[in-house]
Amino acid sequence: MNASAKFFDASTPVAFAGKDTGNTPTFRWYDKDRMVHGRRLEDHLRFAVCYWHSFCWPGADPFGGETFLRPWHHGSDPMAMARAKADVAFELFRLLDVPFFTFHDVDAAPEGASLSESVANLNAIADLFEAKMATAKVRLLWGTANLFTHRRYMAGAATNPDPEIFTYAAGQVRAALEVTHRLGGQNYVLWGGREGYETLLNTDLKRELDQLGRFVSLVVEHKHKIGFKGPILIEPKPKEPTKHQYDFDVATCYGFLARYDLLKDVKLNIEQNHAILAGHSFHHEVALAEALGVFGSLDINRGDDLLGWDTDQFAMNVGELALVFHEILNRGGFTSGGLNFDAKIRRQSIDPDDLIHAHVGSMDACARAFLAAADMLDAGALTTPLADRYGGWAGAEGRAILGGQRSLADLSDRALGPGFDPQPRSGRQEYLESLVNRYV
Amino acid sequence: MNASAKFFDASTPVAFAGKDTGNTPTFRWYDKDRMVHGRRLEDHLRFAVCYWHSFCWPGADPFGGETFLRPWHHGSDPMAMARAKADVAFELFRLLDVPFFTFHDVDAAPEGASLSESVANLNAIADLFEAKMATAKVRLLWGTANLFTHRRYMAGAATNPDPEIFTYAAGQVRAALEVTHRLGGQNYVLWGGREGYETLLNTDLKRELDQLGRFVSLVVEHKHKIGFKGPILIEPKPKEPTKHQYDFDVATCYGFLARYDLLKDVKLNIEQNHAILAGHSFHHEVALAEALGVFGSLDINRGDDLLGWDTDQFAMNVGELALVFHEILNRGGFTSGGLNFDAKIRRQSIDPDDLIHAHVGSMDACARAFLAAADMLDAGALTTPLADRYGGWAGAEGRAILGGQRSLADLSDRALGPGFDPQPRSGRQEYLESLVNRYV
Amino acid sequence: MNASAKFFDASTPVAFAGKDTGNTPTFRWYDKDRMVHGRRLEDHLRFAVCYWHSFCWPGADPFGGETFLRPWHHGSDPMAMARAKADVAFELFRLLDVPFFTFHDVDAAPEGASLSESVANLNAIADLFEAKMATAKVRLLWGTANLFTHRRYMAGAATNPDPEIFTYAAGQVRAALEVTHRLGGQNYVLWGGREGYETLLNTDLKRELDQLGRFVSLVVEHKHKIGFKGPILIEPKPKEPTKHQYDFDVATCYGFLARYDLLKDVKLNIEQNHAILAGHSFHHEVALAEALGVFGSLDINRGDDLLGWDTDQFAMNVGELALVFHEILNRGGFTSGGLNFDAKIRRQSIDPDDLIHAHVGSMDACARAFLAAADMLDAGALTTPLADRYGGWAGAEGRAILGGQRSLADLSDRALGPGFDPQPRSGRQEYLESLVNRYV
Amino acid sequence: MNASAKFFDASTPVAFAGKDTGNTPTFRWYDKDRMVHGRRLEDHLRFAVCYWHSFCWPGADPFGGETFLRPWHHGSDPMAMARAKADVAFELFRLLDVPFFTFHDVDAAPEGASLSESVANLNAIADLFEAKMATAKVRLLWGTANLFTHRRYMAGAATNPDPEIFTYAAGQVRAALEVTHRLGGQNYVLWGGREGYETLLNTDLKRELDQLGRFVSLVVEHKHKIGFKGPILIEPKPKEPTKHQYDFDVATCYGFLARYDLLKDVKLNIEQNHAILAGHSFHHEVALAEALGVFGSLDINRGDDLLGWDTDQFAMNVGELALVFHEILNRGGFTSGGLNFDAKIRRQSIDPDDLIHAHVGSMDACARAFLAAADMLDAGALTTPLADRYGGWAGAEGRAILGGQRSLADLSDRALGPGFDPQPRSGRQEYLESLVNRYV
Repeated sequence: MNASAKFFDASTPVAFAGKDTGNTPTFRWYDKDRMVHGRRLEDHLRFAVCYWHSFCWPGADPFGGETFLRPWHHGSDPMAMARAKADVAFELFRLLDVPFFTFHDVDAAPEGASLSESVANLNAIADLFEAKMATAKVRLLWGTANLFTHRRYMAGAATNPDPEIFTYAAGQVRAALEVTHRLGGQNYVLWGGREGYETLLNTDLKRELDQLGRFVSLVVEHKHKIGFKGPILIEPKPKEPTKHQYDFDVATCYGFLARYDLLKDVKLNIEQNHAILAGHSFHHEVALAEALGVFGSLDINRGDDLLGWDTDQFAMNVGELALVFHEILNRGGFTSGGLNFDAKIRRQSIDPDDLIHAHVGSMDACARAFLAAADMLDAGALTTPLADRYGGWAGAEGRAILGGQRSLADLSDRALGPGFDPQPRSGRQEYLESLVNRYV
Repeated sequence: MNASAKFFDASTPVAFAGKDTGNTPTFRWYDKDRMVHGRRLEDHLRFAVCYWHSFCWPGADPFGGETFLRPWHHGSDPMAMARAKADVAFELFRLLDVPFFTFHDVDAAPEGASLSESVANLNAIADLFEAKMATAKVRLLWGTANLFTHRRYMAGAATNPDPEIFTYAAGQVRAALEVTHRLGGQNYVLWGGREGYETLLNTDLKRELDQLGRFVSLVVEHKHKIGFKGPILIEPKPKEPTKHQYDFDVATCYGFLARYDLLKDVKLNIEQNHAILAGHSFHHEVALAEALGVFGSLDINRGDDLLGWDTDQFAMNVGELALVFHEILNRGGFTSGGLNFDAKIRRQSIDPDDLIHAHVGSMDACARAFLAAADMLDAGALTTPLADRYGGWAGAEGRAILGGQRSLADLSDRALGPGFDPQPRSGRQEYLESLVNRYV
Repeated sequence: MNASAKFFDASTPVAFAGKDTGNTPTFRWYDKDRMVHGRRLEDHLRFAVCYWHSFCWPGADPFGGETFLRPWHHGSDPMAMARAKADVAFELFRLLDVPFFTFHDVDAAPEGASLSESVANLNAIADLFEAKMATAKVRLLWGTANLFTHRRYMAGAATNPDPEIFTYAAGQVRAALEVTHRLGGQNYVLWGGREGYETLLNTDLKRELDQLGRFVSLVVEHKHKIGFKGPILIEPKPKEPTKHQYDFDVATCYGFLARYDLLKDVKLNIEQNHAILAGHSFHHEVALAEALGVFGSLDINRGDDLLGWDTDQFAMNVGELALVFHEILNRGGFTSGGLNFDAKIRRQSIDPDDLIHAHVGSMDACARAFLAAADMLDAGALTTPLADRYGGWAGAEGRAILGGQRSLADLSDRALGPGFDPQPRSGRQEYLESLVNRYV
Repeated sequence: MNASAKFFDASTPVAFAGKDTGNTPTFRWYDKDRMVHGRRLEDHLRFAVCYWHSFCWPGADPFGGETFLRPWHHGSDPMAMARAKADVAFELFRLLDVPFFTFHDVDAAPEGASLSESVANLNAIADLFEAKMATAKVRLLWGTANLFTHRRYMAGAATNPDPEIFTYAAGQVRAALEVTHRLGGQNYVLWGGREGYETLLNTDLKRELDQLGRFVSLVVEHKHKIGFKGPILIEPKPKEPTKHQYDFDVATCYGFLARYDLLKDVKLNIEQNHAILAGHSFHHEVALAEALGVFGSLDINRGDDLLGWDTDQFAMNVGELALVFHEILNRGGFTSGGLNFDAKIRRQSIDPDDLIHAHVGSMDACARAFLAAADMLDAGALTTPLADRYGGWAGAEGRAILGGQRSLADLSDRALGPGFDPQPRSGRQEYLESLVNRYV
């Protein structure tokens, strides 16, 4: 790629112009400096652009080849291509005015003929990132290592039947974690893309879970050793690429962290598309993670409710997002996490501008949803009826039951008493659904 | 119902006649006295007939009314009808020659106008059961309380927003647990049929999980108090009747038990149809429960892979069952659990004989599958290749890694060494699938 | 039920008060007299309240009994109960100010001991409806016969293995069609609730399709004979109650109508929940029906994307509805069809007011969506880019190809010519999605 | 690839050795010369090996790269690689002793810089195939053109918004059809891999269907012109790669063929994995195609019931296959069609032997299933009860109804008569399921 080539037509960052503007691309809702619940909108939403979908994916799918023909995908010098890619990436970060980005080791730098060569490549590109970040606004939300693309990982990384492959993965993660630390990353992510199985006929489930527990523990230990302060994030996904992934959903990840004593150091990175593939709403996964104390960050995207694979579309559904943000804001908002666009433009969206429209449209949908969530919270639209519904548990008897001061026999005796016949009350679902519609 | 009326045509128990017999109904594979791995087949499979589907369900579905017109469903004296139902039930147990049955409180005895009346009815029918069991072969695999049919439970029992309904449920469970104990039940089951939510808009997820944790703890405490030796079993199901059930799947239940410190006393009752509704194979759920040490018992039935609700058909798929039994037998077989037919004849199967054909056909499918599983284990068909595949982890370095004697840096140093390039090996899935086909 | 009892608290019809009103229940978007594209909003949307969910269903589900305890469900005189039910129904029609209602024969009047008794009951209630309609605004959108609840239909009505049951169904349909005609119904609906199979093991697919073709033809012939002007509507649904329903989806129904030469007289009644159960979006089913020329009417409701059965919730999703209405309005809007609320309040929504909130909330969501659709059409937001995208087909060569003036060899010769290398153009999906978000 | 390199270890074709043999790979059920219903088993099953999965796919998936490292995938001369690939392919055909193979144009020969170059490449490889086939047993079951991989087809081939791309596709199909004809192909297949849409926002459904109708008609016209005798086959698939494919399922394809008057010349090629993705059983799709008179051929493979994408595993499920073959054999068996292994070994199955084990295991499963189907037919196990169940329709009144000699009023009059009360009969589903289990 010719370093002087300009990939995007635009050169001025996208600006906020209000919801009635006719111009595009323009933010109609995302007014980054608007104060909401004591923070700037930008500091609430903490948008991050991801490297892999936006700069690495060529537009291929299982039935078709490359459609994008990105200049930096076609060349004979991998490191030169990686630098050209970085130029375009940082230009997009600037044009979108996003505060964060995210990457896998192999997104940023080409793999070499050996691990040491790969690590050297990664460190060279990290130098470049460091230099670019010195003059740019963008920071690193999280880094990660790709332990799923190379054929050595075809049967898993941590859960591979071969301990040597586990070892190779450990080497790769160490390098990625240290680079993330060096670049000021606020979290480190472990997505177990091949930690699962294709068939139980050749799988020792118990052993593989133990391997995975050990692997995550090794990363946690190393994080403490090098002084990395951010949490380790694991990412629930039920299936794809494997038939069954061990980090199936939030509840499964919670059980795994409890079993291997990792609840203190590890949180979850939740994705909409992974949620629905697991049979849950996005709202459910976030609410459950908050309830269990393991909420970390979001991969913000959108799956197709009628398709059984990870379509990773840009999130555009304001109603769905508003309930998710209501949950998060009600618990105080993000700490180290943010909204990472693990989203890819469709393979037919082959124009550079499509990358911009996609991000801007989704950032706007998020901003609008967030403002609706804040309004609902301010009005107590959902929280007040909720407190009322569970009012009985705040009473003396309710607290005694939950506090362990009643035995089964105590309760039974009360229930057997004359006239004990508690009556159900309306759940008012349609009323509440209509109410939410006023805000979104 | 006229007590002298004969419901089934047959009067002789179904017998084993070998696989080449042309007669029906006859066991072609289920030779109960055949010794396998040191136990009689009957003692391995521990079949139980369930009360609800076979004697209580009238053949209705959401779009249609009763089809069966059972005599004991039509009468003005509920206790007389309950006794007539018991007569038919014990006659079916005898004709099928099964060693176990299972029931909910309200299957056996009618609900009264108050809890105390309901409990009195239950105890009266328990007296009848006790008398019948004195001269019958059949024993009680487990009992349970129905906390989902009555409108008071429409928003949950343990997880109800109203602590008084929690209290009522406690009263019902105490009675059912004590009756189960009196009848020599080998387990006690808690299925959380309404422990879930319809909409998150009116649900406090964290609070409801705490309520559920407390409820199960109360039951465990009472079990110890009365000296009931069997385990408490909870039953994974992801959805239906509620949109989301808290006991979603095996992994979720494990996390729940870990969170509320219940792993010692509570095991899981796993069902094929619930497994597939959760997006898992039956084999997966059983293997995972075994791996996590929470396997208890099975509700043996079959869902339709293409339908999204609990069809509870009779299990007839020998290939699927063989892999499940391979897993169980490889871990030593059932202890307190068994194979409970939580299965219902189709609503078009309106002849009394359909009840017999369904059970016999499924018992035979289970027996055939179990014998295939035993043969595979004897030949090491799957276990030998499995041990070979993970052989590296049995070596010194593998053990050192899993044993915590290697740090991330240790492993990384090794991986960075010259020439470290572990190669993948074939997973041999198609070979193993073909191999299994030789046995089933 | 005491005839003087008042079921709803309100006595004044719900009114339009604008989107900023704080009162409930109030229409915030549904301003019935607002003119859009030359028609009143009420005349565009043609809302209908259905009898079965709102007045007949007791709140039961497969795991639980009645929750609603409607007064008219508890009594010893079926015809008195039917009249009491009609009083409440017409009161709800008045309070909601809807222009239409819909019913099945057995919703309105109790089944008798014979078909002739059932028909007499139906005619008596039809007299009552006629009297009420004389002074009410409400009219009949369509009537239908229930051929799926009674056990005689357990194996189908038209597709039953027994021609006598086909005959019984014919008798029932004739009566329902004639009552619909008498009451001025604008359509007549045939939903094949049991026209399908449970297992192919006992099913002759070809024969059953021929039976169904004959049955629909009989109804069409009779409609012409009695001078009923409205279309016959069949209703796509893929499964439930049967494992496979013959009217699976729009495309299947089209093929069926083509095969049995029914395209002229029969149109489709499309439902959101049925669409998603078939693996299609609601938008798809409506767009396809319009494309194939078989669009008739809508059952407006909402399924749960994550559940595999017909939840029939009230439609509240403005974004989804807007695209559906865009499609319909772009083709000129409804003719004989309308928006029938085939939607039921949740079984926990046990207050009379829940019935009102549900309808009002959904009517408002529809109105808002319809206005957004009209705005999109006025602006050409989607239609202009669409025309541009297919511009090549409007050219001479495009028309020649489609018009049959080019052979495969002609086209091949052209493609083999030097330099023939047509390039793809961006599909602009994310841009279009963002654009739609401006309107909804 | 070194032309003298030997890819497979084996050099002797796999032989039949009976079901008790311990050797692998060996046919245990597939005794090709065994006579069944008057034909050799080989002539019934008509197995075909497909080119794309077995020789072209490198083992990649959306999250991982190549795993197989086939020698013929790595070279600088595309035509040399194509010839090397053909050597291995014909060696596998020989080792498996299959009577047929299948291929897409681009599987066999590399695409050139222009269509004319691509066609030249294809013809050169066709020469090679012709030479090889002169001395080999293998024949061509069908050929096809790949209209979905190249980026020009990203928005469809026949249904592309650009008529020039339609034209390009026409050129490609003409060449592939003529090569298929030259090689003695028995069918020609059109799979509409990109004939569908990603979003309705940019799609003109009606126009695209008309384009597709025209395209298929062009192919039919050309087939007659060149004297190709075999049928054109279209292939139902509901989704993937596009969100919605126009050839959704058998019923949809039937409607499409009826609409565009193609029923005489076009039949269907049905695939198990496509069936279940569409929400149908494989059995259903085959039975429906037979009922509608459009059955053509089978792509024999197996999807995962719990995954939402095309896994294309080797068919191993004897029970499922037996019912499909029962349907086909009951209608007289294949004419031009056969069993094409549109199945791929898992990406972890990286050994050459895995290719052999997979095909042998699946051929054996098919043979065993076919023999079971023949036995069931011989015994009338399913056909006799079926004829009995519908016996009423064979009577005078049944024939009169179906023959159009009864009006709705006639039937109604009969149903209104005194004592008309037809009773349902048991569907006997569990009995029939048990019965099938005796044969498989």
